[in-house]
Amino acid sequence: MRKKIKPLGNRVLVKKIEEHEKTKGGIIIPDTAKEASQLAEVIAVGSGRNEDGKIIEFEVKVGDHVLINKYGGTEFKQDDEVLVIFRQSDILAIVD
Amino acid sequence: MRKKIKPLGNRVLVKKIEEHEKTKGGIIIPDTAKEASQLAEVIAVGSGRNEDGKIIEFEVKVGDHVLINKYGGTEFKQDDEVLVIFRQSDILAIVD
Amino acid sequence: MRKKIKPLGNRVLVKKIEEHEKTKGGIIIPDTAKEASQLAEVIAVGSGRNEDGKIIEFEVKVGDHVLINKYGGTEFKQDDEVLVIFRQSDILAIVD
Amino acid sequence: MRKKIKPLGNRVLVKKIEEHEKTKGGIIIPDTAKEASQLAEVIAVGSGRNEDGKIIEFEVKVGDHVLINKYGGTEFKQDDEVLVIFRQSDILAIVD
Amino acid sequence: MRKKIKPLGNRVLVKKIEEHEKTKGGIIIPDTAKEASQLAEVIAVGSGRNEDGKIIEFEVKVGDHVLINKYGGTEFKQDDEVLVIFRQSDILAIVD
Amino acid sequence: MRKKIKPLGNRVLVKKIEEHEKTKGGIIIPDTAKEASQLAEVIAVGSGRNEDGKIIEFEVKVGDHVLINKYGGTEFKQDDEVLVIFRQSDILAIVD
Amino acid sequence: MRKKIKPLGNRVLVKKIEEHEKTKGGIIIPDTAKEASQLAEVIAVGSGRNEDGKIIEFEVKVGDHVLINKYGGTEFKQDDEVLVIFRQSDILAIVD
Repeated sequence: MRKKIKPLGNRVLVKKIEEHEKTKGGIIIPDTAKEASQLAEVIAVGSGRNEDGKIIEFEVKVGDHVLINKYGGTEFKQDDEVLVIFRQSDILAIVD
Repeated sequence: MRKKIKPLGNRVLVKKIEEHEKTKGGIIIPDTAKEASQLAEVIAVGSGRNEDGKIIEFEVKVGDHVLINKYGGTEFKQDDEVLVIFRQSDILAIVD
Repeated sequence: MRKKIKPLGNRVLVKKIEEHEKTKGGIIIPDTAKEASQLAEVIAVGSGRNEDGKIIEFEVKVGDHVLINKYGGTEFKQDDEVLVIFRQSDILAIVD
Repeated sequence: MRKKIKPLGNRVLVKKIEEHEKTKGGIIIPDTAKEASQLAEVIAVGSGRNEDGKIIEFEVKVGDHVLINKYGGTEFKQDDEVLVIFRQSDILAIVD
Repeated sequence: MRKKIKPLGNRVLVKKIEEHEKTKGGIIIPDTAKEASQLAEVIAVGSGRNEDGKIIEFEVKVGDHVLINKYGGTEFKQDDEVLVIFRQSDILAIVD
Repeated sequence: MRKKIKPLGNRVLVKKIEEHEKTKGGIIIPDTAKEASQLAEVIAVGSGRNEDGKIIEFEVKVGDHVLINKYGGTEFKQDDEVLVIFRQSDILAIVD
Repeated sequence: MRKKIKPLGNRVLVKKIEEHEKTKGGIIIPDTAKEASQLAEVIAVGSGRNEDGKIIEFEVKVGDHVLINKYGGTEFKQDDEVLVIFRQSDILAIVD
């Protein structure tokens, strides 16, 4: 059974989208860019509260495809998928 | 079909303007400057809200030509165009 | 007799969960990730007050399994268990 | 036709004043100083608003001669003039 | 006669507890941890006021055993005891 | 004609006081100190306003002798005098 | 005649107390500590106002013996005494 991961605060859990999927979609991320970006799918959004009680508004929702910084966040693996936990404020854009 | 990219928060999506276009327009960006600037065209502006609910006022709009720091932002490529996502606060000037 | 450790402020005391337990649970933390994460169990939560009197809301509670940054926090050992003290704001997610 | 450059926010566009003009005016900037300054003329001032709506008061106006940090700002060239974009808060003084 | 030391502001004066005492108490601090902790006893707490008049609430009191970062604080020696002055916000936990 | 220099905001224009004057006055600045200080005379004080409209109170006035950090500020030369622009908050003390 | 030095803002002028005086008083500062402290006597306290008009409360007064960080502050010499200017917030403790 797969475990459920609930990010804290303003964090978002995303799954990196593999290269062969990206080239189909028309977006190519060059490896030479200084701050390279990466496509990913949102798997879960955080609790939406900071520890001082402030409410966090999420612009991203589960299922959204987003552009993230390729080298940001904290990675781990579950069932052969590379998952990454990001702060929402580090997500660059939503890709329709 | 080209995908639509919606920057988050105070971010702006720009397309770098190539060298041969720049020299026509009368602005030459020297390669020797310590913080070199670069001409770019605004393709999309962000959602205009931070995650704490603050409203962001955009001074730039789609179609504007802007001066950006050549080495700033996060780059990617779509249909052979180099696109860059910037925070508006890192855009230096609008070029009429 | 085991000593009781009460973290201060927004800190949380966690016990690292060993490798063999993790693979059973379906989450594998790759050693190659730049910011590797680590499973841990919450042993105690902090006092919930900062020294300027602000109240801290805890999203984690004793017994929760959490994802932490493998190299974060301050470690010590008690009765052969590796314990780590973390600020709650550095805990990435709760794992159900 | 020369393009018009409108700095954003609290930024100011200045033109560096060449050496031979400086020595006439009685101010010599030593090359050995750790933080060397440079004379410049204000060409344009920013929009005067931050993206969070705060008003910026400008103490400098178009035509003012100012002392800037020689190595600060972001440079570019237009019609053989070296132009630099500075935040007003990095301008040291007005020279009458 | 031993001098009395009154820490300022949110500072706390602690006395490091020697190794042979620690192993009796059941807590072993590994030397290999990246951020090693250290047992200490609180000797004096600060004045409880910042210079801007803010009141500081102390969670620790004289006599408490606390976990501190082994390499933090500012050390000195009095009558062969190693004393350390810490900001309360750098104390990790109280050990009962 | 000597140009007038008006520092912006909380800045202060000072003239370094030469060695032979200092030894007469009884203050010797050792070259071996890690953060060496330097005597200087205040030539002009800033406009007294930040760009967000906050008023700055000056404790120093034209003619005051002050202690500055020898290696701070931004230097330039006018009529063979070494002038330095400092933020008032970096001035250490007034010397009567 | 000795010059009077008036520290600005939250600064304090102290005179370092020599080694032979310290050992009499029972406090020995080890040279091996990473952040070594140093005994000093308060000679003058600052003006008690920041440039934005905030009042600073001094916990130390002229004549107090204090513990400072040995390598902090800005040093100078007057009549063979080593004087140091410190921000009050960097003074560790008062020694009775």
